[in-house]
Amino acid sequence: MGIKIHGSPMSTATLRVVAAAHEKDLDFEFVTVDMKSGAHKQEPFISLNPFGQVPALEDGDVKLFESRAITKYIAYNYEGKGTPLVYNKGKEMADLAVWMEVEAHQFDPVASKLAWELVYKSMFGLQTDNAVVEENEAKLVKILDVYEARLSKSKYLAGDSFTLADLHHLPTLHYVLGTKEKKLFDERPHVSAWSKDILARPSWGKSLALQKQT
Amino acid sequence: MGIKIHGSPMSTATLRVVAAAHEKDLDFEFVTVDMKSGAHKQEPFISLNPFGQVPALEDGDVKLFESRAITKYIAYNYEGKGTPLVYNKGKEMADLAVWMEVEAHQFDPVASKLAWELVYKSMFGLQTDNAVVEENEAKLVKILDVYEARLSKSKYLAGDSFTLADLHHLPTLHYVLGTKEKKLFDERPHVSAWSKDILARPSWGKSLALQKQT
Repeated sequence: MGIKIHGSPMSTATLRVVAAAHEKDLDFEFVTVDMKSGAHKQEPFISLNPFGQVPALEDGDVKLFESRAITKYIAYNYEGKGTPLVYNKGKEMADLAVWMEVEAHQFDPVASKLAWELVYKSMFGLQTDNAVVEENEAKLVKILDVYEARLSKSKYLAGDSFTLADLHHLPTLHYVLGTKEKKLFDERPHVSAWSKDILARPSWGKSLALQKQT
Repeated sequence: MGIKIHGSPMSTATLRVVAAAHEKDLDFEFVTVDMKSGAHKQEPFISLNPFGQVPALEDGDVKLFESRAITKYIAYNYEGKGTPLVYNKGKEMADLAVWMEVEAHQFDPVASKLAWELVYKSMFGLQTDNAVVEENEAKLVKILDVYEARLSKSKYLAGDSFTLADLHHLPTLHYVLGTKEKKLFDERPHVSAWSKDILARPSWGKSLALQKQT
């Protein structure tokens, strides 16, 4: 029984998992969950994730949900394949843990709100709330200042090689860089170089290609 | 050089780290960060965490921030001491990853908002926003239904033993159970038994004792 990734090509959480699977050179079947018809809130999907959110993974008997749990599973379970995406000991493992949490609790909430206001809302014909944009832009400035300092010391967030701490940023980074907030990245040389580097990875190109197939 | 935990005894993120340190029987020094005077936004603290949030950990040369990164560091780095708080392979490791993410992305945002509205606001003389309480109570009902189903299959969230997936809940669980929302836990037998079990752990009693010392 092969690997199945259930999700939507428009979902940032889904693309995070797809990018990890490509980094590990995994063969997988992508199963589109039709969110417009509410398929993620019904059986059979809610047997995969009782919270009714994409994505979910099936790998033989193992069933998982929550995008960052799935990427960790992929990274550790397929350690011998593709790109090593994690560190297993010492200070590097500690730094990896820190920067994965920073992505989840600092960057993602702000980047997701900006992507929602500046990208997704127009797709749905909704009006951008400029107060929300300004509030999150101010937060993003502070976050990117910390990233600039960090990335002036190491090429990637957790150390000298590309890891899940970087990969987890890809989908929201991609969307935010398509908005006027791109200037905040361009103004910071290390952040700018890092963004370009990770978005140029073949795994990300393959992940985005999913949006054209469906 | 010993272990130093920098934080505030009133901070749920700080208590999460202190509980993990007690589970691992670690000797550590607790360094109070005076948040009232804004010490967390200034040097020397921001050299430990550039985001200016408690807690932070020093363990010799290793410096970490983000509570859930610190607990993981403690669990893996002190694997041979105290309670084993993680699983290292297979389906159990996958389940651990899933339920740690569920705590961080499902339970914590809702429980933290309820604790803020129903506990912390009154400490600061602020008015509870009942609309926010109702919205998050409705979300908590759905989350606890999923927990009830899960805990009817295994004693703890990630399997048959207590892990970080359970431990991470302790501080917000403690505060929310001190409010009218306790009824939502009491109504669900497996959730209720799990809550009582984990809050009765000696590590949690020792962690709370910190509030009386300062």
